[in-house]
Amino acid sequence: MNAISTGSERSGTGAGRLIGVGVGPGDPELMTLKAVRALGEADVVAYFAKQGNASHARAIACGHFRAGAQELPLGYPVTTELPKDEAPYRAAITDFYEDAARSVAAHLDAGRTVAVLSEGDPLFYGSYMHLHVRLSQRYPTEVIAGVTGMSGCWSQAGTPIAQGDDVLSVLPGTLPEAELTRRLAEADAAVIMKVGRNLPKIRRALDAAGRLERALYVERGTMNGSHCERLAGRADVPAPYFAIVLVPGWGTRG
Amino acid sequence: MNAISTGSERSGTGAGRLIGVGVGPGDPELMTLKAVRALGEADVVAYFAKQGNASHARAIACGHFRAGAQELPLGYPVTTELPKDEAPYRAAITDFYEDAARSVAAHLDAGRTVAVLSEGDPLFYGSYMHLHVRLSQRYPTEVIAGVTGMSGCWSQAGTPIAQGDDVLSVLPGTLPEAELTRRLAEADAAVIMKVGRNLPKIRRALDAAGRLERALYVERGTMNGSHCERLAGRADVPAPYFAIVLVPGWGTRG
Repeated sequence: MNAISTGSERSGTGAGRLIGVGVGPGDPELMTLKAVRALGEADVVAYFAKQGNASHARAIACGHFRAGAQELPLGYPVTTELPKDEAPYRAAITDFYEDAARSVAAHLDAGRTVAVLSEGDPLFYGSYMHLHVRLSQRYPTEVIAGVTGMSGCWSQAGTPIAQGDDVLSVLPGTLPEAELTRRLAEADAAVIMKVGRNLPKIRRALDAAGRLERALYVERGTMNGSHCERLAGRADVPAPYFAIVLVPGWGTRG
Repeated sequence: MNAISTGSERSGTGAGRLIGVGVGPGDPELMTLKAVRALGEADVVAYFAKQGNASHARAIACGHFRAGAQELPLGYPVTTELPKDEAPYRAAITDFYEDAARSVAAHLDAGRTVAVLSEGDPLFYGSYMHLHVRLSQRYPTEVIAGVTGMSGCWSQAGTPIAQGDDVLSVLPGTLPEAELTRRLAEADAAVIMKVGRNLPKIRRALDAAGRLERALYVERGTMNGSHCERLAGRADVPAPYFAIVLVPGWGTRG
């Protein structure tokens, strides 16, 4: 698992190597040595982004691209008019991932090493997974773990999140309020992702679960303009989608 | 948050800086650029280890210590004869952390920058937290997030762990069997830590929760001699304490 593609592999006649590269939570210094090395060796650097938007992952990692590396932006289709639970949305997204996998595969077939950037950790709620499941059985593949967004946030906040025999739950803010309340009440520590427009519901669930006083709101953890405050003291104004809420477990056990 | 102590701070008359340094899951290349920089600037490098044992964190990071840096090993007391749930054990451990904090504080009071190594991520089930809660209110403190052991394991296994609206639960293998079963049944994805002698119980709980077929057993993720296999196919022989079990969520949703 320590091997990353070498020049001889790249110049050979075989297929290229697929590398899922975790670039960490935002601060470019939270990239790993291994991620930096992989980018220095990759012929092609691929990354997801919403169409018309810059890629956060590219912004974090671009200082380490190899001179002459080819970039392969993979632009999500605009689907704002489609309801997310319904077939047309799913079909559009599935088609998009199939197309993206074909674009990457074309480079691999040509013997090129392709690094796919992933914010945070590639296999933890990351888009890279959609390429991994389509390509990793067919091409030599390596995944380089990264620092997750949630680790970046609790480190930034200086808040021990879990210790000893704590149960930690990672919960999407999209869960129904009753389920969110129940799961928060049962966890020693929790991380709530996909905050955005779900924040009022999340606040009610934390309150009902007796966790609101401990909850911290973190915005843009480890990036420029990052911000952390007690959720209980925050005005109930909209939050960005990538804000997270932390419920530290430290101190809940005797 | 981008500032780490500088030489001028070190040579000044004020207190030194405390830095919790995540060194990642085992592979030295999974250290972050920021951790490497912090170690190159630290006057003192502290690390926990069982008395008489080498420190894993030191082994991962020692190639980056500044020439002339002072090492401060913090050796856990031998407590094998004390029951973990009872007061004498807790008193011994609390005394140990108080002593360790005093040792670190003495260096900080002398104006020295102290880096405390932590396997994985410092604030995620790490011993560094016991120093952080005792010292971070009194001294300038920074925490450098690291790649967690669990990220190292699922990356090594090449297994997407969670996606979309998955609920991920991090569970200690020390939980009672009925609670473990219930929590496994309710999670889309799970990570079970503190496996060791709890493995037979964990296997029964996974089976009862309908999760055994998906479960992966990972030993020494990202270290030399790492090993991953389906738990269902593994002989029921003892596991090391730091082995973990992964229950991937990918594929459980439509």
